[in-house]
Amino acid sequence: MRVILTNGVHIAAVTVAAVLAMAGGVMAQALKDVQVPATPLVLKAQGSFFVGGDTIEQTRGELGDLGPGGHIAVNQMYVRYMVPQGGEGNVPVVMVHGATLTGKSWETTPDGRMGWDEYFVRKGHPVYVPDQVGRGRSGFNQAVFNNVRAGSTPPPNQPLWLRFSDESVWPNFRFGLTPGQPFSDSQFPVTAVDELAKQAVPDVSFGGLPTPNPTLKALADLASQLNGAVLMGHSQSGSFPLESALLNPGAAKGLVLVEPGSCPARYTADQIATLAKVPTLVVFGDHRDTSTGLPTLPTWQARFEACQALIGRITNAGGQAEMLAPPDRGIRGNSHMIMQDKNNLPIADLILRWIDERVSNRRR
Amino acid sequence: MRVILTNGVHIAAVTVAAVLAMAGGVMAQALKDVQVPATPLVLKAQGSFFVGGDTIEQTRGELGDLGPGGHIAVNQMYVRYMVPQGGEGNVPVVMVHGATLTGKSWETTPDGRMGWDEYFVRKGHPVYVPDQVGRGRSGFNQAVFNNVRAGSTPPPNQPLWLRFSDESVWPNFRFGLTPGQPFSDSQFPVTAVDELAKQAVPDVSFGGLPTPNPTLKALADLASQLNGAVLMGHSQSGSFPLESALLNPGAAKGLVLVEPGSCPARYTADQIATLAKVPTLVVFGDHRDTSTGLPTLPTWQARFEACQALIGRITNAGGQAEMLAPPDRGIRGNSHMIMQDKNNLPIADLILRWIDERVSNRRR
Repeated sequence: MRVILTNGVHIAAVTVAAVLAMAGGVMAQALKDVQVPATPLVLKAQGSFFVGGDTIEQTRGELGDLGPGGHIAVNQMYVRYMVPQGGEGNVPVVMVHGATLTGKSWETTPDGRMGWDEYFVRKGHPVYVPDQVGRGRSGFNQAVFNNVRAGSTPPPNQPLWLRFSDESVWPNFRFGLTPGQPFSDSQFPVTAVDELAKQAVPDVSFGGLPTPNPTLKALADLASQLNGAVLMGHSQSGSFPLESALLNPGAAKGLVLVEPGSCPARYTADQIATLAKVPTLVVFGDHRDTSTGLPTLPTWQARFEACQALIGRITNAGGQAEMLAPPDRGIRGNSHMIMQDKNNLPIADLILRWIDERVSNRRR
Repeated sequence: MRVILTNGVHIAAVTVAAVLAMAGGVMAQALKDVQVPATPLVLKAQGSFFVGGDTIEQTRGELGDLGPGGHIAVNQMYVRYMVPQGGEGNVPVVMVHGATLTGKSWETTPDGRMGWDEYFVRKGHPVYVPDQVGRGRSGFNQAVFNNVRAGSTPPPNQPLWLRFSDESVWPNFRFGLTPGQPFSDSQFPVTAVDELAKQAVPDVSFGGLPTPNPTLKALADLASQLNGAVLMGHSQSGSFPLESALLNPGAAKGLVLVEPGSCPARYTADQIATLAKVPTLVVFGDHRDTSTGLPTLPTWQARFEACQALIGRITNAGGQAEMLAPPDRGIRGNSHMIMQDKNNLPIADLILRWIDERVSNRRR
């Protein structure tokens, strides 16, 4: 039995193994370490659905040569949701994952603790977790790959699939400068880093998606269908909430940019004026001035500063934009995967308080 | 408000839209139609984890050219789970999806009704829903595609990606002989067939996975980690429970083959003797003798008969193997996607009763 003390919430946790009263046997690391909260999760509803999608026609070869040509759906976005009992009037939160990842990012952490998806539900918010178009359960358009295989399309025309190596994740996600050597204050559960590695899937979004990325409109449409939502992005999708708010400003009730890969400097004054109507929070962890280990990628400190500049522009336009950097509050060692860090729930509490103050109060 | 009457369970359902008291606005079909049960879902635990996985080394090019070569995880299997409050002592059920699909198959139906994942939980069983290795949140090995793109591997060496066209689904999944013209007694919610189309993702398992398929051992390992489970497969994965039971007979407490794509005739007498120790149920819907519309694929009646033959062999070896064909009980019109059919919950009740009688009683 283990007790996790978070900011205002007590959770007694035991492993699923203990709860299921297993008789023994060798178990894999992942399931063995999954913890069970002391109190049940009571849901008004849970399930999944799709947003968007286009119907297109493809040839027999493009479909994989089993049957005749015909139509398929592409560019749809899978969304899994949980609505807490009694929380159906609270603002929904949409959580979007980063590069080479899926919605799994927000679920059970690599070391088996509660993810932000369930924690935000337990704090009263309906939570919606998509897989970006092109990844996970949203699928991708396979036609070009089958055409290249058949020789009807030149190989360079098929898009790259991106993966981060386990070694490159250490400096880039800021667990430590060198693989296997965590920062002394690292909050990431580095003993479970192999479980994080399993969360990674190939990412086709660098050249393999339509322009603009269909996920942006899908997120705006989802927020609209929910009659307003907080849009939360991470890393690659860190700027997606901004883009979706520009597509449908009325539907975005709040924007949370968690360790965003970019905070664009290109927005016009008109666009900044639009963004100034939506409360915005940017969240960055620690050790930002270290090298990413990937020469083409700027340091996270450079991105932090670009976000500070954007916050300045929005604030100057009369908006409510803020930076939440735990190191500024004496909370050290948070990584790029802050939603999976050992102090992920206290960090979530800071975001939840911001939602209460900046988003929910505004609506009352 | 709508009331669905199933075998012993009353569920009053309203749409999420109504529960969230939305003020209006145009909503996409999918979310608008999602129904909310009248009673909350009370979970002891929910979350996700991985089973299996190999760490392999890849080159810079194989990883997508962003950073240096290094290691990644491949062949892991993503699993999402829900454990009902008070049901932790009941036998878990693992639900595996079919070709070109993901674990989404078992979630909310295309027309927004409750999926078997939640229904089995509400009936007291912990439920585990994987994505097969190579698909969805389990990811796939992207190296060969990047090598083909770079010109270092011949295009024919990259595997096919299979999709079923919307048109081919109608005869093959037995909604009707012709697209848009359902059987008069069809149980599939054909007005939502476009939402089923969005569930499809490219399937690399025809040549793009290691042999044997890593999903088979992952399922056996999962059942073992759970200290015993009912393994349920569908279509492409219909025979997976048999294969996993042969890998670890003690961990498979029951096998449910839903519309299996094959019931192998190749099993030896020793293998049949092993399978005879595990209760097995095969489930087939209606309209099996119609053409699949795909010339290389046998009719579902031919597969039904192969399963009857396997049931005969297991029974002759002293085992408990049975066929559940709703048409034999006067229930007509069930499709290949029986877990999504309009009568999916009454069909689930038949399977749940079988688990009670053949699996759970045996354990008490």
